[in-house]
Amino acid sequence: MSILVMGTVALDTVKTPHGRKEDLMGGSATHFAISANMFTQVYLAAVVGQDFPEKHLRFLQKKGISLTSLEKKAGCTFRWEGEYHEHDLNTACTLTTQLGVILDCIPRVHPTLKNQKNVFLANYDPDAQLQFLDSLNNPELVGMDTMNLWINTKRKSLRKVLRKANILIVNDAEARDLTEERNLLKAARALRAMGPKLIIIKKGEHGGLFFSKDMISALPAYPLETVKDPTGAGDTFAGAVMGYISRARKINEQIIRRAIAYGTIMSSFNVEGFGASRTAALTRKNLESRLKLFKMFFRF
Amino acid sequence: MSILVMGTVALDTVKTPHGRKEDLMGGSATHFAISANMFTQVYLAAVVGQDFPEKHLRFLQKKGISLTSLEKKAGCTFRWEGEYHEHDLNTACTLTTQLGVILDCIPRVHPTLKNQKNVFLANYDPDAQLQFLDSLNNPELVGMDTMNLWINTKRKSLRKVLRKANILIVNDAEARDLTEERNLLKAARALRAMGPKLIIIKKGEHGGLFFSKDMISALPAYPLETVKDPTGAGDTFAGAVMGYISRARKINEQIIRRAIAYGTIMSSFNVEGFGASRTAALTRKNLESRLKLFKMFFRF
Repeated sequence: MSILVMGTVALDTVKTPHGRKEDLMGGSATHFAISANMFTQVYLAAVVGQDFPEKHLRFLQKKGISLTSLEKKAGCTFRWEGEYHEHDLNTACTLTTQLGVILDCIPRVHPTLKNQKNVFLANYDPDAQLQFLDSLNNPELVGMDTMNLWINTKRKSLRKVLRKANILIVNDAEARDLTEERNLLKAARALRAMGPKLIIIKKGEHGGLFFSKDMISALPAYPLETVKDPTGAGDTFAGAVMGYISRARKINEQIIRRAIAYGTIMSSFNVEGFGASRTAALTRKNLESRLKLFKMFFRF
Repeated sequence: MSILVMGTVALDTVKTPHGRKEDLMGGSATHFAISANMFTQVYLAAVVGQDFPEKHLRFLQKKGISLTSLEKKAGCTFRWEGEYHEHDLNTACTLTTQLGVILDCIPRVHPTLKNQKNVFLANYDPDAQLQFLDSLNNPELVGMDTMNLWINTKRKSLRKVLRKANILIVNDAEARDLTEERNLLKAARALRAMGPKLIIIKKGEHGGLFFSKDMISALPAYPLETVKDPTGAGDTFAGAVMGYISRARKINEQIIRRAIAYGTIMSSFNVEGFGASRTAALTRKNLESRLKLFKMFFRF
């Protein structure tokens, strides 16, 4: 089955030890969509400004990503500028944020897509996540992400979204902030009590942990010699996980594990290029061939 | 085949969020020996003081660990006191160190053990590691560990030991300090150029990375809800790795991977109790049963 993602579509300016790139196509929903698109049909719901380059839209459409729920509004596209330092490529230092159109407009689903069964609420204001979710007719599988800003400023709204979600995909700092538990197993248990029954905690270069009622699991990241730009790695991971699960049409331990392995591999490609350049150019063969190498790690 | 380990046998006082324990049996060679002993015959070479409790020696002997190369000298046993904080159980803060007898005496191998083929040089002054190694008759498999103190103060001697080692087992900070490379894949390549052809980099709660000429691999740590005392986790890991390889009598990718999986599981038990209390009480059944759960992580 297909998946509907709501989130940001942005223009990113990124500086890393490998260089500086301006106005890259970025945003939580963009990275998610490009990744999920490797596995299933993706519908992207987002708002951009008049300045958003047509070439980016054409690129997404050419990939087969549906933009019927992407609206162009008067104003500027959301822009983010960040920097990563050599000693900690896991952490982005935000230099500037220009909200632009996303300050007043929230993504709306196209009327023909209101019956979508699989939805992902990428990082966004939880009030907007809630409103978007409420505009849908009984989605069956709801995944979500968030960030420290919303944990600190909109905890109440965030808790409402959490109650409606099945899958939470957050990083370790977010899991800890949301629960005030340092130990990630305890944090996962507390998160499950807040609503979502499947918890995925991303640890960047250290891989991830996954929790359901009966399962605790862990995977390392795929080791890389060159990390050019970590922006969007988490959204890329989530895109592959949700894309794979949506395609599978069911959830069991085996499928979750496979989904997470694909997430790991997709995000390893993401960080090897600036923006979504590497994932956008990825072939099925590239993906399967790295997954095969990854599987070798665990032959013992 | 059996393995000979040289290193420290110490009395540790440890404070963690789970309590404070005085005069625990500790030291790099102790943790290594107790762990390796699950897999093969261990010969322990170390020096302790007159104050070292007989009950600890009886305990090790009862386990089947050979103490023919453990010498009791006039003076005090090496003592270490450290503390771990809730927010970072990966890092030990040393409160006091009393070198005692290890200041003047270095471990010597018993004449009957000079032909040992498998040797591990646990964390120790590299000059002593070198002298110990030179007293052996052509060991075939030499594993080693070190620490930041020696990297900073005795780099030249350390490089000499490295040239004679086949396997290096260090943590991520040590790998970076030794090579001045931040990226661990680049660090591993630089370490291989220094001598040892198999490099194992431990990342504590984040698992580990493993490098040989043809293989790069990674494993997560076994996720735990309760970490009582991380002291000795690295030595326990090394003990299982070297113990398993020694028992296997050969090295290939499959054996290295299995050895590292056992190391991961053994060290997960180690941190669940103070000192070596948990590993020392471990049964084969405990070990295999957790390894089985761990293997499940990678069924995708």
